[in-house]
Amino acid sequence: MTNEDARTPASVQGEKSQEAGKSIGWHKAYVEGSRPDLRVPVRQVHLTNGQSVTLYDTSGPYTDPLAETDVRRGLPPLRENWIIARGDTAEYAGRPVRPEDDGIKHTSPRGGLRNLDAVFPGRPRQPRRSRDGKAVTQLAYARRGEITPEMEFVAIRENVSPEVVRDEIAAGRAVLPANVNHPEIEPMIIGKRFLVKVNANIGNSAVTSSIEEEVEKMTWATRWGADTVMDLSTGRNIHTTREWVLRNSPVPIGTVPLYQALEKVDGRAEELTWEIYKDTVIEQAEQGVDYMTVHAGVRLPYVPLTANRKTGIVSRGGSIMAAWCLAHHRESFLYENFEELCEILAAYDVTYSLGDGLRPGSIADANDEAQFAELRTLGELNTIAKRFNVQTMIEGPGHVPMHKIKENIDLQQEICDEAPFYTLGPLTTDIAPAYDHITSGIGAAMIAWWGTAMLCYVTPKEHLGLPNRDDVKTGVITYKIAAHAADLAKGHPGAQEWDDALSDARFEFRWEDQFNLALDPDTAREFHDETLPAEPAKTAHFCSMCGPKFCSMKISQDIRRQHGESREDIEEGMAQKSKEFAAAGNRVYLPIAD
Amino acid sequence: MTNEDARTPASVQGEKSQEAGKSIGWHKAYVEGSRPDLRVPVRQVHLTNGQSVTLYDTSGPYTDPLAETDVRRGLPPLRENWIIARGDTAEYAGRPVRPEDDGIKHTSPRGGLRNLDAVFPGRPRQPRRSRDGKAVTQLAYARRGEITPEMEFVAIRENVSPEVVRDEIAAGRAVLPANVNHPEIEPMIIGKRFLVKVNANIGNSAVTSSIEEEVEKMTWATRWGADTVMDLSTGRNIHTTREWVLRNSPVPIGTVPLYQALEKVDGRAEELTWEIYKDTVIEQAEQGVDYMTVHAGVRLPYVPLTANRKTGIVSRGGSIMAAWCLAHHRESFLYENFEELCEILAAYDVTYSLGDGLRPGSIADANDEAQFAELRTLGELNTIAKRFNVQTMIEGPGHVPMHKIKENIDLQQEICDEAPFYTLGPLTTDIAPAYDHITSGIGAAMIAWWGTAMLCYVTPKEHLGLPNRDDVKTGVITYKIAAHAADLAKGHPGAQEWDDALSDARFEFRWEDQFNLALDPDTAREFHDETLPAEPAKTAHFCSMCGPKFCSMKISQDIRRQHGESREDIEEGMAQKSKEFAAAGNRVYLPIAD
Repeated sequence: MTNEDARTPASVQGEKSQEAGKSIGWHKAYVEGSRPDLRVPVRQVHLTNGQSVTLYDTSGPYTDPLAETDVRRGLPPLRENWIIARGDTAEYAGRPVRPEDDGIKHTSPRGGLRNLDAVFPGRPRQPRRSRDGKAVTQLAYARRGEITPEMEFVAIRENVSPEVVRDEIAAGRAVLPANVNHPEIEPMIIGKRFLVKVNANIGNSAVTSSIEEEVEKMTWATRWGADTVMDLSTGRNIHTTREWVLRNSPVPIGTVPLYQALEKVDGRAEELTWEIYKDTVIEQAEQGVDYMTVHAGVRLPYVPLTANRKTGIVSRGGSIMAAWCLAHHRESFLYENFEELCEILAAYDVTYSLGDGLRPGSIADANDEAQFAELRTLGELNTIAKRFNVQTMIEGPGHVPMHKIKENIDLQQEICDEAPFYTLGPLTTDIAPAYDHITSGIGAAMIAWWGTAMLCYVTPKEHLGLPNRDDVKTGVITYKIAAHAADLAKGHPGAQEWDDALSDARFEFRWEDQFNLALDPDTAREFHDETLPAEPAKTAHFCSMCGPKFCSMKISQDIRRQHGESREDIEEGMAQKSKEFAAAGNRVYLPIAD
Repeated sequence: MTNEDARTPASVQGEKSQEAGKSIGWHKAYVEGSRPDLRVPVRQVHLTNGQSVTLYDTSGPYTDPLAETDVRRGLPPLRENWIIARGDTAEYAGRPVRPEDDGIKHTSPRGGLRNLDAVFPGRPRQPRRSRDGKAVTQLAYARRGEITPEMEFVAIRENVSPEVVRDEIAAGRAVLPANVNHPEIEPMIIGKRFLVKVNANIGNSAVTSSIEEEVEKMTWATRWGADTVMDLSTGRNIHTTREWVLRNSPVPIGTVPLYQALEKVDGRAEELTWEIYKDTVIEQAEQGVDYMTVHAGVRLPYVPLTANRKTGIVSRGGSIMAAWCLAHHRESFLYENFEELCEILAAYDVTYSLGDGLRPGSIADANDEAQFAELRTLGELNTIAKRFNVQTMIEGPGHVPMHKIKENIDLQQEICDEAPFYTLGPLTTDIAPAYDHITSGIGAAMIAWWGTAMLCYVTPKEHLGLPNRDDVKTGVITYKIAAHAADLAKGHPGAQEWDDALSDARFEFRWEDQFNLALDPDTAREFHDETLPAEPAKTAHFCSMCGPKFCSMKISQDIRRQHGESREDIEEGMAQKSKEFAAAGNRVYLPIAD
């Protein structure tokens, strides 16, 4: 996104190479706000024609050559002073971390990864929460008319006035996920009035992957443009993995507390209790999780509605809650204790992501009774959350054919008072496992155009396995395309400048500029060099696709050279000829009647 | 596409392995029509539960273990007897093939590839054309109320009645590209009433690639689902390359005669003449090209309209014609001689693909004056072509942001009397070179849903270089996804059965069936095996994505096992509990007012 802000970013000297040895022609820069400790990172692309384009940057300090980062110490607590200055929160001892938090029983033979190497060394810090019932959420501040440093930060990022940011948050049309225990993040906002955001899921599973891999996936995902990251770890060392991810993440982190709670009862859904769940939520809130998916809309009476579905319940959380409800023949403990849960989240400014546990898992199940029954309940819960000043977004499907997509966003906006919609895809067909980043990228672009605020990415491995580093990159790039295509369709101010800058570079054969402006400069350059590797080709007025004689852009330029640059020039030379045609009614053939 | 036809296909024995050693669990089969020589190929996927799914098949005899194929002899002339039986065409000597046809001047130092190895040996055959002015196009037959074997063939392929096929062709809403000199093709139809089709472009350029590569790209593209192939060769040996491609292609072949004509004048656009172009069209028509892109809509008065564009003219043909018009300050020779061109195409039943030479090449230029001025002229030319019984489709953009896509198809359908629209993408953003199969796949799915009949694929190499084998596959798969997503959105009868079959296999953990039903079985299997290679994993009730404890589908199944399969069963067990909630208004929380 081109930064429209008048203030010129304070450029950071020196180029950062994206991968060993590979220079990518852009600088990390910062736009300063009203105070010295409010510096908004941007990605400044320097063009060979002397101009520069400023793009939205999610990569954090890792791409700043002047910043010293150490994953064992974590990122600097950017927001700490802002939080302390508000004086409405206080540190406290916090709950003790137990081996169970990492899925390790006292009786467990192996100690898992819980050893000195695995435990995050970091900096000593106590958890923080609201002081004597004070409202400490960005929603509460916005309602009070306060513009926080976080709000000013996103206003600069989005090129809108801080007042617009405050308005949207106060109205519940946008959320600014920022747990008081996650001071490391660079604030960002999620709402239809702003740039469409992309979430990347990471997380080890019981089957594979390690702590180090997950931290690396997180920094890798944000480097390519992920605006938030969800840690969906389900195996051992959940607590420890999350700690490493949180302390090193420049973007808000989301989780599904139910996963860890289930680990605490050895995966036996029926043994889950409100107490275990609540303890897990507090554990994660103290660590700094910014938003939590809560499947409180999966109610006992809705479970039968899924019985005749082709693919039943495909949400992990949804299936777990459905199993619990049926096992006890009781209403969901999440639904019954929702108000108490609101009080907990409010104390840390954890944002709700109300989960769509009954989303369709196949084209056949799209927009069915179960899905919309849950959506209506999410609308009810959204109203309750707002009473407690808890920021809230609503999760959406899933698998939906194109002609049924719009109904999803329209219903959600109506039922949930325009709360931000956060959708997974949707996938527009089921026939292409290994290409579901594409089947879903199509639906994602469309639903974002129609108002979805954040898109949860889908990788090529969806339905098949755990995504690796390459899959994460492919998923993020695909979804950045969908998000930007939607920004264009929504006419988001400044969105098209990025396209225009790249198209100008293309028409003028500034190959290096095309590469550097590309979402993925490395791959663009690599593809070009496959067939025309030579350095001269970087300035050639053609590529191997059409060759010199057939390059339409080259011919177009020749035309302009020969007949003048402007339309007027060309028209002048053709005025006479054109007149003749006008006289002939611009037709060569006469009607059959003649 | 699942074949709804009652007739069970006569299955071919034995399995065909897709790549060395790799079995893919499907058989080539044929559905017989009203005559023994009318056998429609289908792809029959055999599921482990004993059922089978029949899909549309474009791969030709190459996937039939009983068929003997030899690229040096070409495919058997499937349609030859049908054409001869009509008795309205006759063989004739045809124009002599000259070295210039392959871009070789007498003065040329090197002989290019024109030697015994390169020249296609094939079978001796003379070209054929309409006998004493008889109307020999499928459009003419349809208008006369005749249902040709070609029409019956596509009716079986599309699971509609032959009468529907005849109606759509007669009305000009569909085309059945089938040059009388290309008897090798398996007939297919392009029209909004039928399955959305996908075209793959191949063709060597002056810069790279060989005859063998192009033939291999063609068979590779049709294996993955390309419905037609355009040979856009621009380098040497154009004539010879085309001959090899035509004689070995089971799908209609399209070309842009202007490219070869330009080669004949050494790439000097201003030296092009109607005579050279006309001679080239006849040369290609005699070889059997089924449809030709003709940029007759690029008129002199429109060229100035492109002067202030960000990316000028991005169509090769469009830029060539614009250069010619300006060089001579004359109206396009294609526009001025369009009626004579119609007479030539009608004699061979070559279908028009009226080119959009002024399509936008960037988001900034979408839906502008130049583009729509040309579209209106294409509407005028479409009317003329129909007078000559020439089948016609209209080409469309290009680069168009999502909110401007629908206007394109709506205008085209209105201006061109619902003639089939054939679009390139459109690309919905310019910022992702190396991912333009995705930026365009989004637009392609949407415009196809709204009525586009055929989609011209875009590969990851678009704007960067000539696609290789992998790029061709990625482009075709991406566009098959877009086309099928559109078939679903249009509610095309039977389209969803493919999705349903795969979703059933997914829910029942029939991994092998999921792979075999996938658009790309090889990659789906490969991705799954990356993390869970063991054979038992092929029957496991989970994958590495969530692991056993968190597999929602497994939990869903357990729920059904424990509480009964049907909704009624589950409801019964829950009737009591549900009543209580109904009594409480299905709410746990009371209104604030209370």
